[in-house]
Amino acid sequence: MVLLYKYDSESNSNNQKKFDELKQLITNDLKKVDFLIKQKINNKVSYIPKVAGYLVKAGGKRIRPMLCLACAKLCNYKGQKHINLSACIEFIHTATLLHDDVIDESKKRRGLKTANDIWGNKSSVLVGDFLLSKSFELMTEVENIEVLKILSETSSIIVEGEISQMLSNRDITTTEDEYLEIIKSKTAHLFATTSKINSYLVKYPDKYKNALDSFGMNLGTAFQLIDDLLDYKSVEKDIGKMVGDDFKEGKITLPIILALRRSNKIENNFWKKTIQDGQIDPGDFQKACSILKKRKVLDDIYTRAKHYGAIAKDALGIFDNSKEKNILLNIVDFVIDRNF
Amino acid sequence: MVLLYKYDSESNSNNQKKFDELKQLITNDLKKVDFLIKQKINNKVSYIPKVAGYLVKAGGKRIRPMLCLACAKLCNYKGQKHINLSACIEFIHTATLLHDDVIDESKKRRGLKTANDIWGNKSSVLVGDFLLSKSFELMTEVENIEVLKILSETSSIIVEGEISQMLSNRDITTTEDEYLEIIKSKTAHLFATTSKINSYLVKYPDKYKNALDSFGMNLGTAFQLIDDLLDYKSVEKDIGKMVGDDFKEGKITLPIILALRRSNKIENNFWKKTIQDGQIDPGDFQKACSILKKRKVLDDIYTRAKHYGAIAKDALGIFDNSKEKNILLNIVDFVIDRNF
Repeated sequence: MVLLYKYDSESNSNNQKKFDELKQLITNDLKKVDFLIKQKINNKVSYIPKVAGYLVKAGGKRIRPMLCLACAKLCNYKGQKHINLSACIEFIHTATLLHDDVIDESKKRRGLKTANDIWGNKSSVLVGDFLLSKSFELMTEVENIEVLKILSETSSIIVEGEISQMLSNRDITTTEDEYLEIIKSKTAHLFATTSKINSYLVKYPDKYKNALDSFGMNLGTAFQLIDDLLDYKSVEKDIGKMVGDDFKEGKITLPIILALRRSNKIENNFWKKTIQDGQIDPGDFQKACSILKKRKVLDDIYTRAKHYGAIAKDALGIFDNSKEKNILLNIVDFVIDRNF
Repeated sequence: MVLLYKYDSESNSNNQKKFDELKQLITNDLKKVDFLIKQKINNKVSYIPKVAGYLVKAGGKRIRPMLCLACAKLCNYKGQKHINLSACIEFIHTATLLHDDVIDESKKRRGLKTANDIWGNKSSVLVGDFLLSKSFELMTEVENIEVLKILSETSSIIVEGEISQMLSNRDITTTEDEYLEIIKSKTAHLFATTSKINSYLVKYPDKYKNALDSFGMNLGTAFQLIDDLLDYKSVEKDIGKMVGDDFKEGKITLPIILALRRSNKIENNFWKKTIQDGQIDPGDFQKACSILKKRKVLDDIYTRAKHYGAIAKDALGIFDNSKEKNILLNIVDFVIDRNF
């Protein structure tokens, strides 16, 4: 059962269909979000829209704002604050990416050169700070203290996750539990906030808030598992960041953790040399990939992602059936079966 | 009239007295702020209190929280939110310093090694982000949308100033007006917010808010003028950061701008070589200082700082006389006459 290698063109186009359905559901709102983002990065210091505009153009999947907008529809929210919240969440995410680029010294992100690569560390730190400060302006404009508390707390938790990840770098004793804690902080928590935040605007009962929180948390966990898997799997044009970056940086992700647990003496020495000591020789990344394949690591991570995806789907069980709900359920499959 | 060289021990002790008066006025509140800061940086990720605690210990003058607390007293504010606001403002400031350390590659700040120097770029960026996110948590806890808008806008303006300063680096065509714009954004605006923020809690009439805004803006401008002057003047043990850092980094501050305007051909070539082209030979910093002295640059900057200080003092004219007002007036002198 080689689950992962089902990425043929048919399943790809099926997956793209799910993504397009979501996009269609919220297409008008998404245009408003894009407009607001452009408005917010406009600045008298012309360098700011230049760099930040590059990031917006680089764009990415916009999965978080789309999720936020779709969940607003699921909650039957009728106002306009979800536009602000979506832009706010995208700014938090983009700021994290920018500061992550400084940190990881990665050369590419989303198939384009990183801002850091073009404009340097200074720029990445400061434009990241600018986007963070704008995210706080955006959430303040929502004028809802409860929403503000959730979003500002989420920002703190993301940073905690990033710091924990930094500390686990090259530490081959990191456990799967510790890894899960890290990705929950740095990724899944923002997905949870994104999914539930609109339910606070419509003052839904707690059980719906909790359901959306669980949906987002598990979806985000699956998302990051697949992201970390793709770093050992994708070809560059698909994922948009350089495959093998995590390997080169000695980042401890689940592929490495499982490979270490399943290693024989020779493999263990290989991981110590490459991940712990950072001594990477030509051909080592290909060797790493072939060990992962041999040890069924990527397949098992895909199965684990499916597990979190299943929890995410069931969490939505308390919502009545609707087009919106159906699309959100499909999004879980999209996140897991994507190859970019 | 060699104004600047009046820093003898007598004027020093007189200046210290003004600072101590302020400290005494708000001593209980300051303890509460310190307690809250320690509480907020406490974290399950033990690395965070370790690094952030180092910064708190490094401490600095705490001029901003002290100013915030004193202005709360001037506004006759009776609640406890000024404690949160003071901690929040100190976090914004400390985060800026941390990210500035990454950017400037400075080796020392406040006489201690910078966090960047000890723990590296990764750490400075992320712990700075952590403090920023905590500052937003702190301001959210104040539960006042108007206050939140002012503080989040201030954060954006600071970053704009930092970016403008980055862009002006080594650009010897920068004018005094442009420099003033930059220091207003990156420094004075936070002083203005610090001074006026409590007046929004007590719902003072606009004229008082505007007066406190002007007080802070002009005080902050004077503060930064003196800061930039001290980089060409202090001995290391006093200012706490390495003297000559700005010179080495090609940072365009007022000493350089005025020296360029007043330079003969030989001096102009010297500034082009050192500041524009970054070619610094042994003895060049001493040479720079002696040109500044010859061209009366530092004395004139001191006079300019006095000018902004005078505006700050007059801005408080609409407040009734009180112990608090008197201490705030003295603080203006302290900021201008300090040599650290």
